[in-house]
Amino acid sequence: MYGAVIHAAGDVRYEQRDNPQIQAPTDAIIRLTASCVCGSDLWDYRGINPVHQPTPMGHEYVGVVVQIGEDVKNIKVGDFVVGSFFASDSTCEICQAGYQSRCVHLEFVGAGGAQAQYLRVPLADGTLVATPSMPDPDLIPSLLTASDVLGTGWFGAVAAEAGPGKTVAVVGDGAVGLLAILAAKQLGADRIIAMSRHQARQKLAFEFGATDIVTERGDDGAAKIRELTNGLGAHSVIEAVGTQEAMMQTIRSTRAGGHVGFVGVSHGVQVPGEELFFAEIHVHGGPAPVRRFLPDLIDRIWKREIDPGKVFDLTLPLSQVAHGYKAMDERRAIKVLLTPET
Amino acid sequence: MYGAVIHAAGDVRYEQRDNPQIQAPTDAIIRLTASCVCGSDLWDYRGINPVHQPTPMGHEYVGVVVQIGEDVKNIKVGDFVVGSFFASDSTCEICQAGYQSRCVHLEFVGAGGAQAQYLRVPLADGTLVATPSMPDPDLIPSLLTASDVLGTGWFGAVAAEAGPGKTVAVVGDGAVGLLAILAAKQLGADRIIAMSRHQARQKLAFEFGATDIVTERGDDGAAKIRELTNGLGAHSVIEAVGTQEAMMQTIRSTRAGGHVGFVGVSHGVQVPGEELFFAEIHVHGGPAPVRRFLPDLIDRIWKREIDPGKVFDLTLPLSQVAHGYKAMDERRAIKVLLTPET
Repeated sequence: MYGAVIHAAGDVRYEQRDNPQIQAPTDAIIRLTASCVCGSDLWDYRGINPVHQPTPMGHEYVGVVVQIGEDVKNIKVGDFVVGSFFASDSTCEICQAGYQSRCVHLEFVGAGGAQAQYLRVPLADGTLVATPSMPDPDLIPSLLTASDVLGTGWFGAVAAEAGPGKTVAVVGDGAVGLLAILAAKQLGADRIIAMSRHQARQKLAFEFGATDIVTERGDDGAAKIRELTNGLGAHSVIEAVGTQEAMMQTIRSTRAGGHVGFVGVSHGVQVPGEELFFAEIHVHGGPAPVRRFLPDLIDRIWKREIDPGKVFDLTLPLSQVAHGYKAMDERRAIKVLLTPET
Repeated sequence: MYGAVIHAAGDVRYEQRDNPQIQAPTDAIIRLTASCVCGSDLWDYRGINPVHQPTPMGHEYVGVVVQIGEDVKNIKVGDFVVGSFFASDSTCEICQAGYQSRCVHLEFVGAGGAQAQYLRVPLADGTLVATPSMPDPDLIPSLLTASDVLGTGWFGAVAAEAGPGKTVAVVGDGAVGLLAILAAKQLGADRIIAMSRHQARQKLAFEFGATDIVTERGDDGAAKIRELTNGLGAHSVIEAVGTQEAMMQTIRSTRAGGHVGFVGVSHGVQVPGEELFFAEIHVHGGPAPVRRFLPDLIDRIWKREIDPGKVFDLTLPLSQVAHGYKAMDERRAIKVLLTPET
């Protein structure tokens, strides 16, 4: 089969790879219908995470099950499935508490490289959720977002306790930030402030439910949020970037007693303890337990209540994956959908 | 009147001071029945917080109201009162959400120096809670703890979401840590692990409800907590120290999805963002909104359901306050109660 492999920063290639095989009786193999490029893939592409050897890329996926291991009970060949980027048994104590992203048997599905024609998914029963039937083609992009970027934005909004009566601010206007806006809206937030200076992203923010835009960044952005909230700060602030500036902007935008949900993968962030102490906020975040939200998210998409697939503003055949990385790196595209040739 | 004044690290003096006066119509003046030395006073005493000028000390207090400003409505002369170390209006949006320690009109009561014969309490209506009648003398120590150290331990347990079905670990065996154990027990925790290597404190920990003792510290302590919790970590971990080691021990003792309540005043702590991200825990803390808990805590003490006053293992006349600081600094006393001469 063919798939994307990163060789070095800036060097993603579409090349022949071995077809994945069942390795454990709990595995499934799926033929990918669509995959995409994640903001977190750019950490490698930009050389911030070092690339030590040629590495298959991609961890967001939807597709059709073509083979299952002998212990797989809930998923069958022919099912259309969505799964998280983390494989989880969904039965351990941590999974049962809703933290499948920290399952005691956790495996990174992306190790198999989902920007490809086929993918091995470990712990298939605990990881994959089948749709009610084969989806209409126009639902594919939205279902694909549920695999990571929607689930991650959703977790950010849940971690920040977005809900009725709350003012929510979102730091970061990438696909995760935009879908955190959609999530906050769905969860019933009164007011949603998007922090963005990009016109196309502002437009999508409004479509997803934003009520206000703040273009300032860092401490100026935080000051603006306080100005908009009677000097108090927002109840809920979602961090969807992962940098020191974004984290401090988030903390300083949150009112005392308020909630930070942080889902940007931290890179070099240090949270000053004394400021955190006197801020008196709640902080929660990490890799999203997407699996917790999947049945609900699939249901909302299936009923066409939400259209998170709008974050894809560029669709390319998988063979042009290098192009996709470049467009996202240069912020010419919010998010790139890739369609494997079959 | 006489009161305690710190002149430099290690130099606390009992000396004559001006009697406090009503300065605002919302003030009250109380004659102190008892005060005490706080673990946080030791930051000054040990020279970790610099002392720039002679400063009145003490912020924990119970006493009898002797004078009120003309706008005070809920508190009257002759009332026996308990108040938080922070004065709050208890009417603003932040107070109403339960964060009186971040009231928009916040004042530090301790600025007046509660290790003294008299104390001015700003925003008396929002800050003070009167007991049902004059308390029996044996209740005074427990009521005094409600002013800070019990309220702070209680907040730590609430912030860490201690409750039924939970295993709670407490980092720090000072009075706050010990009373966090009492709080966790009252809140219904199944199992409470005290981290302590001091025999007298271990004994009190058991009396307050601890079920296990861990003597290891730092990463060894965290490893021990994991060993005791099936490799997962505690559901709730309370940090009651304020150092980098204690904070990291706390984070590393907490299971994914679990809750950290941190109430040790952070000194030089930096929380590594990447570790916080992958730990996937909830973190909440800060200066305790003691006022939120006061009515409930006074009620429990009044009914003799709890006896937090046991943390006082040394009682001195206020004139020997310097002695009290020394005993706490050398860890010869857990907590020192001071009785002003009248």
